[in-house]
Amino acid sequence: MSRYFSGRFAALTPYVPGEQPQDMQYVKLNTNESPFPPPQVVLDAVSGESACLQLYSDPDGRKLREKLSVRFGVSPEQLILGNGSDEILYFAFMAFADDTHPIAMPDISYGFYPVLCSLLNLPNERIPLREDLSLAVEDYCGLGKTVVIANPNAPTGLALSRKEIERIVASNPEHVVIVDEAYVDFGAESALPLVDRYDNLLVVQTFSKSRSLAGARLGFAVGNAALIADLNTLRCSINPYNVNRMSLAAGLASVENDEYNLANCRTIMENRAWTREQLAKRGFQVPDSRANFLFAKSPAAGGEALYKSLKERGVLVRHFGQERIRDYIRITVGSADQMEVLLKKIDEILEEAST
Amino acid sequence: MSRYFSGRFAALTPYVPGEQPQDMQYVKLNTNESPFPPPQVVLDAVSGESACLQLYSDPDGRKLREKLSVRFGVSPEQLILGNGSDEILYFAFMAFADDTHPIAMPDISYGFYPVLCSLLNLPNERIPLREDLSLAVEDYCGLGKTVVIANPNAPTGLALSRKEIERIVASNPEHVVIVDEAYVDFGAESALPLVDRYDNLLVVQTFSKSRSLAGARLGFAVGNAALIADLNTLRCSINPYNVNRMSLAAGLASVENDEYNLANCRTIMENRAWTREQLAKRGFQVPDSRANFLFAKSPAAGGEALYKSLKERGVLVRHFGQERIRDYIRITVGSADQMEVLLKKIDEILEEAST
Repeated sequence: MSRYFSGRFAALTPYVPGEQPQDMQYVKLNTNESPFPPPQVVLDAVSGESACLQLYSDPDGRKLREKLSVRFGVSPEQLILGNGSDEILYFAFMAFADDTHPIAMPDISYGFYPVLCSLLNLPNERIPLREDLSLAVEDYCGLGKTVVIANPNAPTGLALSRKEIERIVASNPEHVVIVDEAYVDFGAESALPLVDRYDNLLVVQTFSKSRSLAGARLGFAVGNAALIADLNTLRCSINPYNVNRMSLAAGLASVENDEYNLANCRTIMENRAWTREQLAKRGFQVPDSRANFLFAKSPAAGGEALYKSLKERGVLVRHFGQERIRDYIRITVGSADQMEVLLKKIDEILEEAST
Repeated sequence: MSRYFSGRFAALTPYVPGEQPQDMQYVKLNTNESPFPPPQVVLDAVSGESACLQLYSDPDGRKLREKLSVRFGVSPEQLILGNGSDEILYFAFMAFADDTHPIAMPDISYGFYPVLCSLLNLPNERIPLREDLSLAVEDYCGLGKTVVIANPNAPTGLALSRKEIERIVASNPEHVVIVDEAYVDFGAESALPLVDRYDNLLVVQTFSKSRSLAGARLGFAVGNAALIADLNTLRCSINPYNVNRMSLAAGLASVENDEYNLANCRTIMENRAWTREQLAKRGFQVPDSRANFLFAKSPAAGGEALYKSLKERGVLVRHFGQERIRDYIRITVGSADQMEVLLKKIDEILEEAST
């Protein structure tokens, strides 16, 4: 820290993303990326766009917002684009929480949320998940706080139904409920159909996972037009040209070819079911994930030990040090080949441990 | 505004960027873009990178930071990358100003700075430029505030020498001096050679103007490693993957081929000299710009009238309503052809006005 750094941030500990080794020698199952590249139409769209990079991108991202609005049956004014959904989460925490509107979130969820609270100095309550890591909906009903829920939750993969989300939204009419649906396309129910009925619901989604565009940094949120206008006020005060030309073009081509993405999601869901079954056979406890990852606890090896042993064997998974979940590892569901390598390495490790 | 929007932002008026008509029927001289596309190597680099967009970008942007560090003779730890330089300015205002460290800036400068002050609720002083729109260095010496200066200044185009910047930096050792060099490559002196001598100097630059990459959103800052670490603390707490893969690849290829960019800068400087001369012949007052734009005041037509008349004739320039400069228009220096169209239209307008 320099002596010039504002005292406001003296206690701030930044978010630590999963390892991103730049040499790519690992079977990389640690940051929930898709194993499938974007389709050729996306590559072509990016190529075409790069020839006019000397010109600013459209600060309104109008074409992509219009395309998404048709896709989701909302108006373009109900949509905002972000440089990844992380940026939109940042805008939303800023906009809809403050000293008089504290935040409530599960004690175990996306590690970025507490960092945002610390950065923005937002009072916040972490509500413990149940023993089985499921979320007790009643804990969030009539709470009188700004609610943030990842659905499916990370890193557990467990999802609430749309009806359960609706109970939370309906019972907190004076506060915004932010539903982070980064992983929704892998078998969970989206709250998107509820945005026209509840002016306090903000649904955040991303192109990173189900649409194979993590490296393009493209997210979006859908909600009541007034909520979106608030987010735009912040966006235009922080970074009006927040999404670049290439990512806008990639996003447009991706939505136009969503059947490719949906087919990939189905494959991931098949691979997830198979991998979960295989892990269960080996004695692992694995919650019923609706995301593109599995959260798995071995009866024979601790989470950190397993993470390290897998890394030594060329397989990267994610381990979290937080007390309630330190026995688990989070495994991104990749291709069938990747899942076979993973299981083979796990078998080696468990065999070694037992001898 | 929704009823959920935090009261903190009730008075916030977002930045309004120059018009970005999406139909492209104008001779577009309003947002200081380059008239030259990026070189083929940049296009190829983007193309190559798009095939692995399913993977996150390197959150450290290491390769590009290393390339830039060699280019500028600093260490990679003295460099941070941003989603455009606007994002870096945002981090810097957050990091180095607060209630006890107010901001000082010229009354006439980049319109984004006051928006950042309003957003972040930062006390700030606007120091009037001299009557001729030049900056009085002595006004900033020993000021005891966080200083923000665009050099060359926008929208005047006037630049301070490195020695003058050094006087300001050296005389404010307890405060950071942010020098925004978005336009420095068009003939001004960069303060970059001073960063190793002054731990309170932050130099911000961009790929948007001289490197033909406005649409890629790529900026960077150079300073003492401790200052850069502070900015990284904020970056990783707000958006750790802030720069996407394609822009990182474009930036790398661009720096590797900087002679193309430098040649374009020379062309712009030639066109600027010629256009300034032509405008002067027509009675315009035009400060001696070191940027890729000219700030011009006609004795015969008001700034807003001229802006509107030019727009009607298919030429977009920028007009600002601020009192001291409302008689001016800001004209981006484009290709020779574009400058000829501009002057032809100006001649038409002045002729009409005089009859």
